[in-house]
Amino acid sequence: MRDVAIIGIGMTRFGELWEESLRDLLVEAALKAAADAGVDRVDSMYVGCMSSGLFVEQEHLASLAADFLGMGPIPATRVESACASGGLALRSAFIEVASGLSDLVLAVGVEKMTDVSGEVCTAALAAAADQEYESFHGVTFPGLYAMIARAHMERYGTTCEQLAAVAVKNHANGALNPLAQFRNRITVEDVLSSIMVADPLHVLDCSPVSDGAAAAILCPLTLARKLSKKPVVRIAGVGHATDSLALYRRPDLTRLRAVERSAHLALGMAKREPSEVDLAEVHDCFTIAEICVIEEVGLVPRGQGADAARSGLTARGGKIPVNVSGGLKSKGHPVGATGMAQIYELVTQLRGDAGERQVKDARIGLAQNTGGSGGSSVVHVLEVC
Amino acid sequence: MRDVAIIGIGMTRFGELWEESLRDLLVEAALKAAADAGVDRVDSMYVGCMSSGLFVEQEHLASLAADFLGMGPIPATRVESACASGGLALRSAFIEVASGLSDLVLAVGVEKMTDVSGEVCTAALAAAADQEYESFHGVTFPGLYAMIARAHMERYGTTCEQLAAVAVKNHANGALNPLAQFRNRITVEDVLSSIMVADPLHVLDCSPVSDGAAAAILCPLTLARKLSKKPVVRIAGVGHATDSLALYRRPDLTRLRAVERSAHLALGMAKREPSEVDLAEVHDCFTIAEICVIEEVGLVPRGQGADAARSGLTARGGKIPVNVSGGLKSKGHPVGATGMAQIYELVTQLRGDAGERQVKDARIGLAQNTGGSGGSSVVHVLEVC
Repeated sequence: MRDVAIIGIGMTRFGELWEESLRDLLVEAALKAAADAGVDRVDSMYVGCMSSGLFVEQEHLASLAADFLGMGPIPATRVESACASGGLALRSAFIEVASGLSDLVLAVGVEKMTDVSGEVCTAALAAAADQEYESFHGVTFPGLYAMIARAHMERYGTTCEQLAAVAVKNHANGALNPLAQFRNRITVEDVLSSIMVADPLHVLDCSPVSDGAAAAILCPLTLARKLSKKPVVRIAGVGHATDSLALYRRPDLTRLRAVERSAHLALGMAKREPSEVDLAEVHDCFTIAEICVIEEVGLVPRGQGADAARSGLTARGGKIPVNVSGGLKSKGHPVGATGMAQIYELVTQLRGDAGERQVKDARIGLAQNTGGSGGSSVVHVLEVC
Repeated sequence: MRDVAIIGIGMTRFGELWEESLRDLLVEAALKAAADAGVDRVDSMYVGCMSSGLFVEQEHLASLAADFLGMGPIPATRVESACASGGLALRSAFIEVASGLSDLVLAVGVEKMTDVSGEVCTAALAAAADQEYESFHGVTFPGLYAMIARAHMERYGTTCEQLAAVAVKNHANGALNPLAQFRNRITVEDVLSSIMVADPLHVLDCSPVSDGAAAAILCPLTLARKLSKKPVVRIAGVGHATDSLALYRRPDLTRLRAVERSAHLALGMAKREPSEVDLAEVHDCFTIAEICVIEEVGLVPRGQGADAARSGLTARGGKIPVNVSGGLKSKGHPVGATGMAQIYELVTQLRGDAGERQVKDARIGLAQNTGGSGGSSVVHVLEVC
């Protein structure tokens, strides 16, 4: 397998982008990545999107993207693993470059969620859960993560204040991100006094419904050194793992086993320990999710995730900064785009281009992208070299 | 890149399978492929499915499949390119094995279409066309292919009788396939007197709505030689290409440019000429589609596709047998499964296991799988060795 690097990144603003269609968003992010890479063609492309079918009645999205990018007839593949679709697009592009089949491969993640009513949107998102055993019976994602939060509280004494501290930290970071959906700082009191969605999760514990896209262009490391005028970022490790979609099939609700395994695989491939990671972008679709994920990745010991945001450990200036982009919580969560937006942030940081929210001396970054309530997880380890 | 072989295949019956759910079909085909290969684990898997979201409100399908196969936590990726999703699953699995990342990789194609009304089904299928420029305005797939048929008639003098001969041939083949949805022989008169769906396409020019799944297990050629007790079938060539989704964006309605390019790429990789192909499974979603495809692949000269079925050229005992399985027309067309069902047929034929419908001395087979009205195409060349 060939070593693979990222030579270009692009991202749209995240938010309720009513003037921009699915294809507009996709094209904007991809062309920004191409401009950043200094290329006008790629050999192949992958589109990560959870459900353009249920959101805007459009399947066959990768061919559409290739055409509207003016890049047809290149091979174009849509990949889907619910909210992990973006990370999966990067993994797929990585494999195609590593295999030797293609040199320049585009990975783009996209979702257009605000064209439909809240009810339709909730139903579309519920398609990431097990239809026969969960969604059909009316369970939605806030409910599923609320069960995980309750289990974590029972096991480790996690409090609503600790959950809230995750949202407070991520909003403080998002306030510095010009592409973020929410740029307002919030307090623990704001979270605790916000509407309860699914006890113990308040609305400010939840990531929003968003539109947006993010993209990256990959090539062999040797080619990247020739083409790129910017610091070259290598994909040092890739991990992908699955678990049951339905919570009832898991032995322990406090565990996200696919996250643990995918992180183990990616760090193993990169030959790195969690303690070597300089910053991490992780899947905080709900505040409890960030807490569980940093435990599974090994950034904190198991059971000690809850206090990490409150204590400042995961703050921008802390020992291990988590979600300096603002995370899904503040930056926004266009589901299929999220995994690629994490990569956008890491590359920006590893290049030293993150301005006000720059993490000092960032050389190794980890991105963790979850599908559903943990039914899939994709982890990448990026290193500047 | 490593050489890649297929060591196991499995397929469900195709048809209106009201007693079997999406996951039942997926598991049945995959376990049959595992049994055929003599393995009980794989390292990774790909699921090709066009729209489990719109058909049964289930996304995140690959993780679900891995879990219900008892194969979690392996990496599991869903790929989608409308009706070419099955072929795309094989291509993706091929790349992962060729890259060296994984040794045993499962590719499965599936679709469950009959759980919804005809109206919902038609709308779901229309998501393979361009939503903003075609489907939104009420165009459906019979209408799109009818326009292609009219253009072909205008250009080459193609007749309704020639279209009908394709259906007659494929039903004659499907009558010998125990897994086919329709096993009745039909006549040209049957086709011409059947209901008109979109002039000039009668209902017997159209493939049906179906449920079903088909699967294959891939591994490096060197490993296949050790593991397999059956003739080893190598994936000698892979081609994937795209075109605009919308017909209005194409310069010539009689052309399926993605088919031509993907076939050129696959035959080029296999270092084969079209004339060396012993049998082909091609995407006959409508009778006109088979005619266009055999021209684009180069099995007949351009403009001479129309008479190939009528003249017997593409019959089972003809010079180049096409769709000896019965094709989409008679075998059935569960959209995401179709590409893998083509592979199932080719491997069965190349192993010499096709019984009554066996093509004599078949050593080189070509599978061509179209997405939408030609917005994508995936071609594989398989060789027994």
